[in-house]
Amino acid sequence: MSVGGVQFFEGVEKLLEIWFTNGSNSSKHADLRKIPRCKLESLLKIVRCEIISFVNNEQIDAYVLSESSMFISKRRFILKTCGTTTPLMCLQPLLLLVEQYAGFTEVEDVFYSRKNYKRPELQAGPHQDFDQEVALLDAIFPDGSAYCLGTMNKDCWYLYTLNPPRDDSITSAIPEPDSDQTLEILMTDLDPDVMSIFTREECLNAAEATKKSGIDKIIPNMIVDDFLFEPCGYSMNGVSKNGCYMTIHITPEPEFSYVSFETNMTTTSYREIITKVLDTFHPGKFVITIFTNEASAAIDSPKEIKRWPTIGEWKRQDMQHCCFKNYDLTYAFYSKFPS
Amino acid sequence: MSVGGVQFFEGVEKLLEIWFTNGSNSSKHADLRKIPRCKLESLLKIVRCEIISFVNNEQIDAYVLSESSMFISKRRFILKTCGTTTPLMCLQPLLLLVEQYAGFTEVEDVFYSRKNYKRPELQAGPHQDFDQEVALLDAIFPDGSAYCLGTMNKDCWYLYTLNPPRDDSITSAIPEPDSDQTLEILMTDLDPDVMSIFTREECLNAAEATKKSGIDKIIPNMIVDDFLFEPCGYSMNGVSKNGCYMTIHITPEPEFSYVSFETNMTTTSYREIITKVLDTFHPGKFVITIFTNEASAAIDSPKEIKRWPTIGEWKRQDMQHCCFKNYDLTYAFYSKFPS
Repeated sequence: MSVGGVQFFEGVEKLLEIWFTNGSNSSKHADLRKIPRCKLESLLKIVRCEIISFVNNEQIDAYVLSESSMFISKRRFILKTCGTTTPLMCLQPLLLLVEQYAGFTEVEDVFYSRKNYKRPELQAGPHQDFDQEVALLDAIFPDGSAYCLGTMNKDCWYLYTLNPPRDDSITSAIPEPDSDQTLEILMTDLDPDVMSIFTREECLNAAEATKKSGIDKIIPNMIVDDFLFEPCGYSMNGVSKNGCYMTIHITPEPEFSYVSFETNMTTTSYREIITKVLDTFHPGKFVITIFTNEASAAIDSPKEIKRWPTIGEWKRQDMQHCCFKNYDLTYAFYSKFPS
Repeated sequence: MSVGGVQFFEGVEKLLEIWFTNGSNSSKHADLRKIPRCKLESLLKIVRCEIISFVNNEQIDAYVLSESSMFISKRRFILKTCGTTTPLMCLQPLLLLVEQYAGFTEVEDVFYSRKNYKRPELQAGPHQDFDQEVALLDAIFPDGSAYCLGTMNKDCWYLYTLNPPRDDSITSAIPEPDSDQTLEILMTDLDPDVMSIFTREECLNAAEATKKSGIDKIIPNMIVDDFLFEPCGYSMNGVSKNGCYMTIHITPEPEFSYVSFETNMTTTSYREIITKVLDTFHPGKFVITIFTNEASAAIDSPKEIKRWPTIGEWKRQDMQHCCFKNYDLTYAFYSKFPS
C-alpha cells in the first residue's frame, strides 16, 4: 500500500478462532473440513485474500494465505489475516457454510483478537476501530465480551470472546474440556539484519530463509509450509502429527517491521520456545499472550510469567491476567531497556 | 438533571488521586493542606461542585462536596465527584496551587479512574469518552498509561496512571514505599427497600439514615461526616485517627440506583468489609477494585479474590489482575445469579 508516496504494510493480524459443537448431541460425523475448497475460496474473497499454499495431515488442514494463514481442524476454525483484510465480514457466510456442509449446529466459543494497528486509519470498516468490530460481533453473538489488555494509549491487545457460562450445577454431566493452550508473540521494532533475511535480495526462496534465520529450529519435527514474498515478506505454517500448529508471519521493512509467532504446541512451559523466538528475531518490543484452559499442560504459565520481570535484555513493562469462565489469559508486554 | 421529562442523575464518580513528592529532597515542610480554603473553593468551581461539610484530624482533611468528596492529606490529594462534574478540568490549576502553596515540586503518581457511565452522552467534555479524558491527561503527563478493566461492551472500569518506572539499579537508595491500599466497591441495581432509607421521606436527617442502614457498623470508630440530600441522596466521609478514610455515596432512585464505597483502611483481608457492604446495600451487581503496593497489609488480596467464585448470592463474572510497577490491581465483577 502506498500512502503519500511512502510504502506501508500493516503486519498486525486480525485473528479469528471459532470452536463449533453440536451441544450434547454427538458430533461424530461433523467436521469443518467437509466445507468444499471452492466455498473456502469464495469466503476468502470477502476477506480480501486468497490461498497460496496448503499442507495437511489427519488432524489439521493448514493454508498459507496471501495475507497470513488459515487452519481448519474437526471443530476449530482459525483465520489470521494481516494488511487491510476484513475477516469479520466473512463471519455470517462462514456460519452458514458450517451449518450447510460441516454438520455443526452451535458456536461453542469465539476468540477475535488483534494488537493495536500501527496505522488504523488505513483499515477498511469495520476494522478501523475496535468499537466497530465489537458492534459487528455483538450483532451476531448474543452475549460476547470485549476486552482491552495493556495500555490503551500505547501498546495494547484487543479481545472479543463469548466467555460462555459453565453451568456448575451439571458439571458432572459435562465432559472435561479438550486441552487447549495458545501462545502468541507479537513483535515490533525488529533487528534490521534479521529482517533482511526475509527479502528476495538476500534469500532465493523460502526454504533458505527458514534455515538461515533459524526458524526451522524453533519447534522441530513440524511439516513446514513456507513462502517468501516478492520483493520481501515471509509466511510459514508448521503442523505436527498430533495436530498442533505453529505459524510465523514477517513484515521485514524497517519502517514498520512486524513479526508474529503463534503455536498451540502442548508443553508445560513456553519458556524455551519464547527464548528461541526472541533469539531468532531480536525485537525491540513484544506482546506475549497465553491462553490456557483447565486441561492445559501449561496451566501454570501465568505464575511462570510473573517470575520473569526480565527476559534476556527485555524488561516487562506491563502484565495482566484475566480469569474467563473457561480460559485463563495472561498478557505481558516487554521492551528492550532502557525503555 | 431532567432528560426528556425524566429525571436522571449519574451516580458514577470520576476519581482523581494524586501523590506529590519532592523527589530525593526533603519534603518535611511541604503539605497539601497549606493550600488556602478559598483557593480550594475556586478550584471546585471549575469542577462544578462545592464544599458542603468538613471534618479533619491531624492526618487528613475530609470534605463532603455537593457531588461526592475530597480528601487532602500531607502529600495525597483525592477528588471524587459524580454527576456531570469535570474534575480533570481542575488538574492544571491544582498543579499550580500545589507548587505555589504546598511546597511540592513533583507529581509522584496519578490515578484517574471511573466505572463506565450509565448515560455517557450527558457528560460534559472531556468526560463523555475515556479517549478524550486520556488525551487531556496525556497532554499534562509525559508517559501515563490508560487501561480498561472488565468488558468494554458491558460493565467496565477505566484507569489512567503514571505507572512510573522503578530504577532497580538504585533500589537500595530508594526508601520502601509508604504502605498503601485502596478498596472500592461500585454497586448498581440496588435493593429499593434499602435505597428508600436515603430519602427525606423515610429519614429526617443523615444521622438517622447512617444508623438505620447500618453504615455506622461497616467500619466502626470513624469520625463520621454524613449528609442527606433533599429530596434524596446521601454522602458520608469517615476518618480514623491513623489517617485512614472511608467514603460512601448513594444515588437511591430505582431507575438509576448507584452506591459507591471506598476505603484505604489497613487490613490484611477486605473480606469482612466487603461482606458488610454487600449485606448493607444488596446490589444486583458490583465491581470490586483493590490496589495494593509491596508494603500493603492486604498484599494477598488478589489470591483471596481468586478463591471467591461466589460471594453470598453473587457470582463472579469477570476477574482481572494487573501488575503495575509500583502497584498491583485486582478487578472483579459480580452479579446476582442467574446473571
